[in-house]
Amino acid sequence: MIKGHGDDAYLYGRPIKANFSSNVYGKVDLSGLKEHLGRHLDAVGSYPEPEPYTLEARLAALNGLGDAASVCVTNGATEAIYLIALAFRGSRTAILQPTFSEYADACRLHGHLITNIQAAQAGTLPEIPADTDMLWLCNPNNPTGGVVPREELLAAIGSHPETVFVIDQSYGFFTRRELLSEAEAAAMPNIIQLHSMTKRYAMPGLRLGYITASPELLSRVRAVRMPWSVNAIAIEAGLYLSEHPDEAPIDLDALLGESERLRGCLDAIPGVSAFRSETHFMLCRLKEGSAAELKSHLAHERGLLIRDASNFEGLDERYFRIAAQTPQENDMLTEAIREYMEGRL
Amino acid sequence: MIKGHGDDAYLYGRPIKANFSSNVYGKVDLSGLKEHLGRHLDAVGSYPEPEPYTLEARLAALNGLGDAASVCVTNGATEAIYLIALAFRGSRTAILQPTFSEYADACRLHGHLITNIQAAQAGTLPEIPADTDMLWLCNPNNPTGGVVPREELLAAIGSHPETVFVIDQSYGFFTRRELLSEAEAAAMPNIIQLHSMTKRYAMPGLRLGYITASPELLSRVRAVRMPWSVNAIAIEAGLYLSEHPDEAPIDLDALLGESERLRGCLDAIPGVSAFRSETHFMLCRLKEGSAAELKSHLAHERGLLIRDASNFEGLDERYFRIAAQTPQENDMLTEAIREYMEGRL
Repeated sequence: MIKGHGDDAYLYGRPIKANFSSNVYGKVDLSGLKEHLGRHLDAVGSYPEPEPYTLEARLAALNGLGDAASVCVTNGATEAIYLIALAFRGSRTAILQPTFSEYADACRLHGHLITNIQAAQAGTLPEIPADTDMLWLCNPNNPTGGVVPREELLAAIGSHPETVFVIDQSYGFFTRRELLSEAEAAAMPNIIQLHSMTKRYAMPGLRLGYITASPELLSRVRAVRMPWSVNAIAIEAGLYLSEHPDEAPIDLDALLGESERLRGCLDAIPGVSAFRSETHFMLCRLKEGSAAELKSHLAHERGLLIRDASNFEGLDERYFRIAAQTPQENDMLTEAIREYMEGRL
Repeated sequence: MIKGHGDDAYLYGRPIKANFSSNVYGKVDLSGLKEHLGRHLDAVGSYPEPEPYTLEARLAALNGLGDAASVCVTNGATEAIYLIALAFRGSRTAILQPTFSEYADACRLHGHLITNIQAAQAGTLPEIPADTDMLWLCNPNNPTGGVVPREELLAAIGSHPETVFVIDQSYGFFTRRELLSEAEAAAMPNIIQLHSMTKRYAMPGLRLGYITASPELLSRVRAVRMPWSVNAIAIEAGLYLSEHPDEAPIDLDALLGESERLRGCLDAIPGVSAFRSETHFMLCRLKEGSAAELKSHLAHERGLLIRDASNFEGLDERYFRIAAQTPQENDMLTEAIREYMEGRL
């Protein structure tokens, strides 16, 4: 899907003052990274490694993976999604919905037979259909912020050895719930994990993600990749960040606390429900009207950008998604939505 | 193919003094571009346009294409190759060999039925097999440097309306032979052209290419692309270069003259043939011994990197490829190969 994602400020003529529309928490200090990249712009003059071997080895070591073949660095987690769909083309595939639309888009493109499954509530796992070759699961989930409990997930993985579980942990840093570690997942034959450096380090412009899995399983994905898909500046950023793990520090407790405070404020607005989340973004729903209208109003009248979530599978036109930002910005948003709702009553 | 391309300096422990192994002519002044990128590193903090619309519109205007839908900007020409192969999967496909191996790799990956065809000599077009859905052609060709004459190409395109001609003009800037323009090709229903900003501006680290074709034909390719494949720094570079067409000037007559001089010097070495080329790189052949040995010797003993061309379809272990660099570097290479050959006699 090219159109319809968040962070679509480019569609609006007026400047956006505060951006709640993508799940990237952008209030981090990237000055060290940018300074480093500024000193290494000569990298544009040589081909990048055809596959980012050096960074893969570095990430393997950092994640306690004994074998660099357990890591495959990609042009954002999005390339990872398309490579996995291609490597396993034609699979009978279940997708835990609502979730990031690229899983279904990539699987459709590569001839998967898709079944959308839905949990009774966010953060639980429904029954897995018989004969499922592959199950996609975002954990924490975009857009709900739900996290499937670790033991429940391990039980499902253990009892479905014939199913490859693709677990997108792009938001793994942004939750206090315990997830599967890279090392324990790579020790199992049927788990592929996705990771995003974009999200953790708020650098979505650079496109840098990676896959971890057992070397055997990952070799299937590696076999279908094209050369040079990750550019030299993104690789340089990854190498720098792997050496500076404390770059761009985030006070996660404060962010999650603020996110919960924001949820309370939004939920208190007459006509708006804001749903519980285990991370820094949340799903909201208007009791009437459409998220598209609200989004357009906020962008054009207030310079605030939210994510119309109506195009997520299983959600209707009343859903929108909010990623918490600073307390001041969050208050601005709450106030703007409150006034919009009052104007409608 | 991940391994086996040029510019593989990363494989060698010792520093490479001069690099003849990739077809990028790197002796250009990129200081303006790098300064611009240095001032725009904030771009890492926002998602790039999911498809680079702004740059596509800019390139359409620059190339005299009335419709921005005639341009599709990609993560290097390599992404373009894989997208085309995917969009036309399962085609009966002819590839004019020897040529860049990614065409065959991409087509194989996406289930094309491939026929390798070979010209009697570089720069001519052999008969096109009956029932060919798609023909791949690199013009000027990598690795031979041959250019199919314009009239011959137009005649073939006109007489095979059922065949989509994919013409990779990545090296189009680097020849004096007349090629099809973007506008005339996009006016025909069965031509897809590939272009590389990497090659023209010697910035292979950034990965930036584009496809031009009629909007109808290109819509098939666009339909299979993933979002955000071109990162924000590469887009920023493309926008800057589209506004500064005189950036990184190359004296093409001097480069082609020097390339021809180098060819004469190499061809004069006993035991070496250097073949005619219409561009700045050329194919060479040892009368005995292997290009792999020569390459290893030059890298380890002299710090000079050449391209072992034995893995091009139809070439044997004696072929190597040289891209001309400065006269001094070219003399260094000639001398090193001469001494190596003398040592073998």
